[in-house]
Amino acid sequence: MKKTKKKVTAAIIVIGNEILSGRTQDINVSFLSRWLNNLGVRVVEVRIIEDVEKSIVDCVNEVKDNFDYIFTTGGIGPTHDDITSKSIAKAFNLSYGYHKEAYDILEKYYKLGKFNNGRKKMAKIPNKATLIYNPSSGAPGFIVNNIFCLPGVPSILKSMAEGLKNKIIGGKKILSKTINVSTVESEIADPLEDVQNNFSNVEIGSYPFFRSGKIGVSLVIRSTEKNQIKDCTKQIKSFIRQKNIKIEEEK
Amino acid sequence: MKKTKKKVTAAIIVIGNEILSGRTQDINVSFLSRWLNNLGVRVVEVRIIEDVEKSIVDCVNEVKDNFDYIFTTGGIGPTHDDITSKSIAKAFNLSYGYHKEAYDILEKYYKLGKFNNGRKKMAKIPNKATLIYNPSSGAPGFIVNNIFCLPGVPSILKSMAEGLKNKIIGGKKILSKTINVSTVESEIADPLEDVQNNFSNVEIGSYPFFRSGKIGVSLVIRSTEKNQIKDCTKQIKSFIRQKNIKIEEEK
Repeated sequence: MKKTKKKVTAAIIVIGNEILSGRTQDINVSFLSRWLNNLGVRVVEVRIIEDVEKSIVDCVNEVKDNFDYIFTTGGIGPTHDDITSKSIAKAFNLSYGYHKEAYDILEKYYKLGKFNNGRKKMAKIPNKATLIYNPSSGAPGFIVNNIFCLPGVPSILKSMAEGLKNKIIGGKKILSKTINVSTVESEIADPLEDVQNNFSNVEIGSYPFFRSGKIGVSLVIRSTEKNQIKDCTKQIKSFIRQKNIKIEEEK
Repeated sequence: MKKTKKKVTAAIIVIGNEILSGRTQDINVSFLSRWLNNLGVRVVEVRIIEDVEKSIVDCVNEVKDNFDYIFTTGGIGPTHDDITSKSIAKAFNLSYGYHKEAYDILEKYYKLGKFNNGRKKMAKIPNKATLIYNPSSGAPGFIVNNIFCLPGVPSILKSMAEGLKNKIIGGKKILSKTINVSTVESEIADPLEDVQNNFSNVEIGSYPFFRSGKIGVSLVIRSTEKNQIKDCTKQIKSFIRQKNIKIEEEK
């Protein structure tokens, strides 16, 4: 995989009424975020929008120039509510119709006589798109400029990610260290802020947790610089020790 | 609860690096969406953004006039990375400081000598805000114009929702009917589209599922009009029967 020294960013656009209605719990965002993070790409924004052409076109146009990569999930299946491909074509003013390579893949995938209209629709993709191969269920995703269009079904999306790695130029990997401490946030807010002020290239997050009757705080230290994380951890552990707070777990 | 005949919409802004990094799986969106749906409020857009003042201010300004209600989750705790209150004040050009009622609540909530700086910070809220009471852990959320600011911890957020009902004027409730059928989407894509074309006020979603070794499709019919759902269901069941497809479940 190619690498760059610059900060590389991404946005995810989740397309689906089923997520907005609360019917379906999205799990693609957390998978994609972690997967991209490993490639040195930081997800900076997520939008969840309706299956409405205007919403998709407007959203793509609003975000496409603000991030290095845009990933969409959902809306590339065979039914009437799957309008991502058509909308992306519209957003980029590309013609939309049968994509030869996608058509050939699907024609081979389905047995003779089973390549019906619904399945043919999945070969309709913006004309200049590069395909993202689908090892699970045939129907490919696609790339147009910096937009990567993936399906909504999590298992299929995951299976397609592997083949995408060489299409992404990542930056430095964002490293992360977690310290779980037995305290409440307000007890450590002041010294934690002091540590944050000492490290402008480190992002310190503080998250209360309640687990098996225990309360505590997860302190998450993130940076592309290993040494910065190390130095920051040292300062955090120093005030934690001074306050006689127990460290439950480090990872 | 007050009601209106108009369509009532909402957006949710999830504020939190922990969601964007994939560390934490958001579950507030699906809870809020279902809860709002029951009040006759349709969630039309969700944005997940970083704990960065400019991102919060810009996002609020971009969405506030497009929806009847905006809900934010996260960033109202005691640590340095909790910057929602301050950012909302900035977005609306309101002064930010100790809110008397919030201060009194927190002072009573914490025992004598335990009302430290971190806890006091949670009483800093835009000056004209109305409070959202917190029956779980004291620290209130708040309302500024059409923005409702809630915490990120799901159990606390849920406990605060009940007291919010009388602050929201909902529209007609969005009703939903689900038919699970033993088929694949492409087999029914054409007749399903025909049915959708017959019902402009009904939203038909088609979602493949894989459960305990079975594949199938969930057809979800949504509308504020009970009769429309009934008529639409009839037409769907008619083509399902014609195609000899088994209906697994209706709900």
